[in-house]
Amino acid sequence: MAKFVYLFKEADGKNKAMFGGKGANLAEMTKLGMPVPEGFTVTTEACTKYYEDGEKISEDIIAQIFEALAKVEAQAGKKFGDPENPFLVSVRSGSRASMPGMMDTILNLGLTDVSVEGLAKLTQNPRFAYDCYRRFIQMYSDVVTGLGKSYFEEIIDELKHKKNIKLDTEFTASDLKELIASFKALYKDKIGTDFPQDPRQQLIGATEAVFKSWDNPRAISYRRMNDIPGTWGTAVNIQSMVFGNMGDTSGTGVAFTRDPATGEKVLYGEYLMNAQGEDVVAGIRTPMTIDHLKETNPEVYDQFVKITQKLEDYFKDMQDMEFTIERGKLYMLQTRNGKRTAHAAIKIACDLVEEGLITKEEAVLKVEPKQLDELLHPQFDCVMLRSSTVIAKGLPASPGAACGKIAFSAEEAVRRAEKGESVVLVRLETSPEDIEGMAVAKGILTARGGRTSHAAVVARGMGRCCVAGCGELVINEKAKTVTIKGVVYTENDYFSLDGSTGNIYAGKVNTVPATVSGYFGRIMQWANECRKLKVRANADTPTDAKQAREYGAEGIGLCRTEHMFFAEDRIAAVREMIVSTTVKQREKALAKLLPMQKNDFIEIYKAMGNYPVTIRFLDPPLHEFVPHKESEIKALAKEMDIAFEELSTIIEGLKEFNPMLGHRGCRLTVTYPEIAVMQTRAVIEAAIECNKSGANVKPEIMIPLVGDIKELKYVKDIVVSTAEKVMTANKVKVDYTVGTMIEIPRAAITADEIAKEADFFSFGTNDLTQMTYGFSRDDAGKFLNDYYDKKIFESDPFQKVDQIGVGKLMKIGVQLGRQTKPELKCGICGEHGGDPSSVEFCHQIGLNYVSCSPFRVPIAILAAAQAAIKSK
Amino acid sequence: MAKFVYLFKEADGKNKAMFGGKGANLAEMTKLGMPVPEGFTVTTEACTKYYEDGEKISEDIIAQIFEALAKVEAQAGKKFGDPENPFLVSVRSGSRASMPGMMDTILNLGLTDVSVEGLAKLTQNPRFAYDCYRRFIQMYSDVVTGLGKSYFEEIIDELKHKKNIKLDTEFTASDLKELIASFKALYKDKIGTDFPQDPRQQLIGATEAVFKSWDNPRAISYRRMNDIPGTWGTAVNIQSMVFGNMGDTSGTGVAFTRDPATGEKVLYGEYLMNAQGEDVVAGIRTPMTIDHLKETNPEVYDQFVKITQKLEDYFKDMQDMEFTIERGKLYMLQTRNGKRTAHAAIKIACDLVEEGLITKEEAVLKVEPKQLDELLHPQFDCVMLRSSTVIAKGLPASPGAACGKIAFSAEEAVRRAEKGESVVLVRLETSPEDIEGMAVAKGILTARGGRTSHAAVVARGMGRCCVAGCGELVINEKAKTVTIKGVVYTENDYFSLDGSTGNIYAGKVNTVPATVSGYFGRIMQWANECRKLKVRANADTPTDAKQAREYGAEGIGLCRTEHMFFAEDRIAAVREMIVSTTVKQREKALAKLLPMQKNDFIEIYKAMGNYPVTIRFLDPPLHEFVPHKESEIKALAKEMDIAFEELSTIIEGLKEFNPMLGHRGCRLTVTYPEIAVMQTRAVIEAAIECNKSGANVKPEIMIPLVGDIKELKYVKDIVVSTAEKVMTANKVKVDYTVGTMIEIPRAAITADEIAKEADFFSFGTNDLTQMTYGFSRDDAGKFLNDYYDKKIFESDPFQKVDQIGVGKLMKIGVQLGRQTKPELKCGICGEHGGDPSSVEFCHQIGLNYVSCSPFRVPIAILAAAQAAIKSK
Repeated sequence: MAKFVYLFKEADGKNKAMFGGKGANLAEMTKLGMPVPEGFTVTTEACTKYYEDGEKISEDIIAQIFEALAKVEAQAGKKFGDPENPFLVSVRSGSRASMPGMMDTILNLGLTDVSVEGLAKLTQNPRFAYDCYRRFIQMYSDVVTGLGKSYFEEIIDELKHKKNIKLDTEFTASDLKELIASFKALYKDKIGTDFPQDPRQQLIGATEAVFKSWDNPRAISYRRMNDIPGTWGTAVNIQSMVFGNMGDTSGTGVAFTRDPATGEKVLYGEYLMNAQGEDVVAGIRTPMTIDHLKETNPEVYDQFVKITQKLEDYFKDMQDMEFTIERGKLYMLQTRNGKRTAHAAIKIACDLVEEGLITKEEAVLKVEPKQLDELLHPQFDCVMLRSSTVIAKGLPASPGAACGKIAFSAEEAVRRAEKGESVVLVRLETSPEDIEGMAVAKGILTARGGRTSHAAVVARGMGRCCVAGCGELVINEKAKTVTIKGVVYTENDYFSLDGSTGNIYAGKVNTVPATVSGYFGRIMQWANECRKLKVRANADTPTDAKQAREYGAEGIGLCRTEHMFFAEDRIAAVREMIVSTTVKQREKALAKLLPMQKNDFIEIYKAMGNYPVTIRFLDPPLHEFVPHKESEIKALAKEMDIAFEELSTIIEGLKEFNPMLGHRGCRLTVTYPEIAVMQTRAVIEAAIECNKSGANVKPEIMIPLVGDIKELKYVKDIVVSTAEKVMTANKVKVDYTVGTMIEIPRAAITADEIAKEADFFSFGTNDLTQMTYGFSRDDAGKFLNDYYDKKIFESDPFQKVDQIGVGKLMKIGVQLGRQTKPELKCGICGEHGGDPSSVEFCHQIGLNYVSCSPFRVPIAILAAAQAAIKSK
Repeated sequence: MAKFVYLFKEADGKNKAMFGGKGANLAEMTKLGMPVPEGFTVTTEACTKYYEDGEKISEDIIAQIFEALAKVEAQAGKKFGDPENPFLVSVRSGSRASMPGMMDTILNLGLTDVSVEGLAKLTQNPRFAYDCYRRFIQMYSDVVTGLGKSYFEEIIDELKHKKNIKLDTEFTASDLKELIASFKALYKDKIGTDFPQDPRQQLIGATEAVFKSWDNPRAISYRRMNDIPGTWGTAVNIQSMVFGNMGDTSGTGVAFTRDPATGEKVLYGEYLMNAQGEDVVAGIRTPMTIDHLKETNPEVYDQFVKITQKLEDYFKDMQDMEFTIERGKLYMLQTRNGKRTAHAAIKIACDLVEEGLITKEEAVLKVEPKQLDELLHPQFDCVMLRSSTVIAKGLPASPGAACGKIAFSAEEAVRRAEKGESVVLVRLETSPEDIEGMAVAKGILTARGGRTSHAAVVARGMGRCCVAGCGELVINEKAKTVTIKGVVYTENDYFSLDGSTGNIYAGKVNTVPATVSGYFGRIMQWANECRKLKVRANADTPTDAKQAREYGAEGIGLCRTEHMFFAEDRIAAVREMIVSTTVKQREKALAKLLPMQKNDFIEIYKAMGNYPVTIRFLDPPLHEFVPHKESEIKALAKEMDIAFEELSTIIEGLKEFNPMLGHRGCRLTVTYPEIAVMQTRAVIEAAIECNKSGANVKPEIMIPLVGDIKELKYVKDIVVSTAEKVMTANKVKVDYTVGTMIEIPRAAITADEIAKEADFFSFGTNDLTQMTYGFSRDDAGKFLNDYYDKKIFESDPFQKVDQIGVGKLMKIGVQLGRQTKPELKCGICGEHGGDPSSVEFCHQIGLNYVSCSPFRVPIAILAAAQAAIKSK
């Protein structure tokens, strides 16, 4: 018979997978001889079994629970449900990783109409006993039956009103008795049965509630955002109650061994006397700082400080602890590695190294890569923020804070920004034509689209703050108004956006620039010493390239040439090329683009020094470059001096049923080889230009959307023969290579063939994910929520590489490619390149580099270092 | 040094891969002691080397050619370019498979200004000599330099006009001399050099022209349509000239050992005296039937008949032969297995078995599966067809012939067909709403869309004639007119369509129904005895199901339930379901559909007897069921009694960027489980109903578009629990299974997981091809032609399974699936299931069955049998 229940003193405190974080640390503290109330842990395996058994706790597990309970009762000399001397417990969840959203705590479990009287008599404190009971009814009803807290708060408020009092502590024992009666009546009314009077039934009910809460929507959503697998399950910790609400010599509190906001090494905490559980954070009474305890109870304070130091030394990290003082005696209820801000995280990691507690590698592991985002973007002024109102909430699409007046179109944003105005671009959704407006805006707000919409992807690439998909916006572009909950805002109003939370504030909230302290640099240096993966950036402009270098990028892994095509001074030539009906016309238009594109490359090469630059040839379908509204087509026809009908026909001809599966990528080159000729000239001529002044530029030409070796060969032949011509004409050699994206499933499974023609592979995991799953990221938003709700998907495959499916294709691609060319350089340039868990996967399958947006480069560096350390 | 050139007597006549069909058979005839002019073959390997060497014939091969030439010269006692006694040759291409579109023949090679005089003197026939020379100049110019025949025809016509004569034979020797002078002047004018006077240069030029013709666009296109790999290459046959134009005792002709139209065992052929090469088929002089030779030259006739019989006995098939009589002496120039009609093919195969020449298995191999199409569709009355004019040509999208008055909408087609009118549905393009109109029309004609457009796919499924993508149609739906080349046709005009050629005829051309002779049945029976693969049909209606059974289908492999949803009596309920905003509303609408769908299944089960029926649950995105034009939405809103704005918003919300990658397949069930509940009820209740009357229906429920095991499990759980409920309520059991389509790359590569929940796999190769290549069939039409032209693709992956990429995923899918369940039933239900080469592939990778449209069932049966025989 498998063992599912362990006393704290039996449990293996190193095994968080089995006992959860809380249970494991309770075991550790117990073993360290700290004052921990007795108890036991029901393991995460019991939770897994609960789900396997069709959401049923097996008889076996129930028996083991009561067996453990009996031992703890014996220890305490009390009996569960004893009318004279009742044994009470707390029930708390505890998964491997800390997980808000799950059921947290039920206190005072074991109280019934009978045993509450015993407790009153025993403690000679009826008020205390009734207070415990009414709290228990509230908590139990909420977490076990879903009968919300608000119902109870209403009853409490009514009674306060009737009694004309303000604080809970002002209730008398008989007030509390009255409350209990009302609560029980409410329970019976809403649930249909009496409030359970059997403590054993209460205990099993509470245990099941913990298991169930593992799969409630908030927990699922939290897991998705934090890469926590649904298979882990939660443990349940059942522990002897100690009481912080037994009068003025009792109390309860929380503390950190270091300041979680700044990282400073000072004991930081708060507590309340004569209080229980959530009272400390509920905000009705103002808690006291931990220093106050030094004055009022120096003995307990000294004992507590010693314990906190011992815990930090033992766990080698800043601890977040819960404690209770019962009639002057200290009890430790919990300890865990404390959550902290990014600033605190890097300071603490560095300090712990200096203090000799941990190694540099351990320090690197202590910083959560995703958290670095905070350090790399401007934030709101905290003081101003407190007095600002959130008027709506969208999706946190690109981090940072932004403030500016509303602009309703990209042109308007450009015009007003040129005059020195700060603007926030507000659009229904953005399209490639909005690029320039997005670049000049402080932030971008859209009504439609998810975290992978055009606005979100482009904004993240630019490091620009973006809140996307805020359905509450009603935008009237013509009238230049946006209405939110009935309030109308115009171009004269300020919006302030928080791209990390999705919050939208009306009015001005000042921002403070990102500050990268010396600690940051130190962690990055240690990370650089550890990692094996190179880290590059996706950068399309010299500005991005410079930014990327500053953040430590070792080259460009993806330079999207099409973004250059949208610029105002080029789009006319691009359109001229598109509407060309002969090769000659097309070549003429391309000739206009050549010097501009060449110049772009020169600037980018310069920004990257001698680091490699991977240039991807034109990728998007041509219809993205032309207007689709009749009025715009008319205007363009006039501008281009061709008939409206002719232009309309051409534009109509570019329409596609499934643009994602259409005429784009290298397919464009197969149809119009002239485009690749021009782009090759620009790449090679720019390199020659730079090399004249002593540089040694090594351009890497990357062919997108290849699915067949012959396709790659066709394009490569054009590239090579053009490059040869240019080099011969200039009598120099350029050290260039030609590689391909692996973003089509067929390319991955025929990678042995494709490697014959490719100098390098770069996995385009955005498209690869779309094709492998058969859904486009633009459309998946419609059903992915159902997939999360129904537990079919745990995470968004566009955020985190799907290692089972897409990852398998990547693995196959790398293996087959290196079967042909053992030294084949393989990288990734999809958005996944900046996602820590995906970076770890890339390390595991042996990629040479990851490439991500400049603002995620430090994150990728840290994740790469952690992957290398973990795989040792 | 590899050997690239073989004398006919040295060559291995069994090795067509190396010597091509023509060369191999010349070798065979030589060894059989038949009167074959001496010569030699340059192998297909030389052709491959020619392309490998960058389109250059290596010195080595040239040396081998002249070495062989010297031997043949010695035999003939003549010398190449000898001014007294010139040796002349013919140069002919010859690939492994017979391939029209390539260069065919150059005769009289070796003639120059000097040697022509020698020939004249030697034969004492200057007219003959000059005629040979002018023919040679024409042929050589055309095939080697691309200087078209029409230039020469013009000169000939001018001279005829001047001389006032009609036939070439009326030219005098000096006329011909004049022609030669004009031809050479033309050559010099257009090509810039003199006509080559070095016979060796001529020979190498002609050889290279043959190699080059292997890759001309017509040849590439022919290969694509006939599954011939581009790697095969062609051989070149160089042979001593014999002359059919040496006067009235000379002649040339072609003959078949059996009638290629009917298969009857009679010698069938034509010849012309005093003629050369193409004169027989040029139609200027009317050739004589072979019987005529019996009278005029019984000796040669007898010799010829003996040879033809010997050849047929030797090759064990009907032979197509070319012969020449030079001054009364017979020469055999070529023999090959003759092309024949489908009718002839099956009769000849059966006859050869009866004659004891071949086995049944060999007979099965002798019939080309694709040809059977001809036997299964109505054809035009040949006599009427001859007097009809082709007014336009579209793509041959679905075979057969059709004739009817023009209908411009599906509703109109239905209305008029109900009155007994024969109609042809003429549309810009068709959509799912046109289904009923398509079903009642005799044929379908569209202006847009390719061979895989909606119209084409649905028409093929229905066995309905369809001509698609005829760009010359200008349709005015409102005015009910269609204009072709300026001529206006109305609803009172007849169109006749040939779906096998794409021809469109104005007016009425009667059709004759398909006749399936007893020979057909016999071949099918033999095929059934040989094959291992089961053959099922894709059928959505009882009519299709019956048709499928008649053609030998052993079950339904794909019953698309959505086609039932478009019917006029259902679409209202379907739309009601779509616009529902609550589960209750949706269930109410579905309740209306339940009895109809149940009844459909009852009828289909009945039609299939106890054969298995695979029912695929709702697959297409919901927006396919709602109108998108404002006027139609208004009408629907009125009909449904909801506000126009509300309906518009709902319909707008259904729009997708990439519908192919959108909310469809099992994703619909995840969002709306009610749909699967209804469909399961219908499937199971229908089965119970049928089983009451003694049947033993075994429905196979198939879940589409699965990409993840959890997705399948979610849907399967709904299906199973619903089925259990229905069976419990009815107190019976139904022997049903639940399987999945494998049509998403992720499903194929995680098939080991998916097999845990699937009772069977069915490869949906249409979608699998789209996702694996990353292009949709609706959009690929725009660039696939460029891919063929540039030799990147050899065949359409939507017609023929791409064995390297998509096929690899299929193999992986089967292997992984059977790793989990060794007996897992695997099939295919994409359109590829009816393509012979794809059927062979399915046999090779161990599928259990293929499923295709009813009209392709016999083709699949034959292909399956051939695959089994070949793999022995």
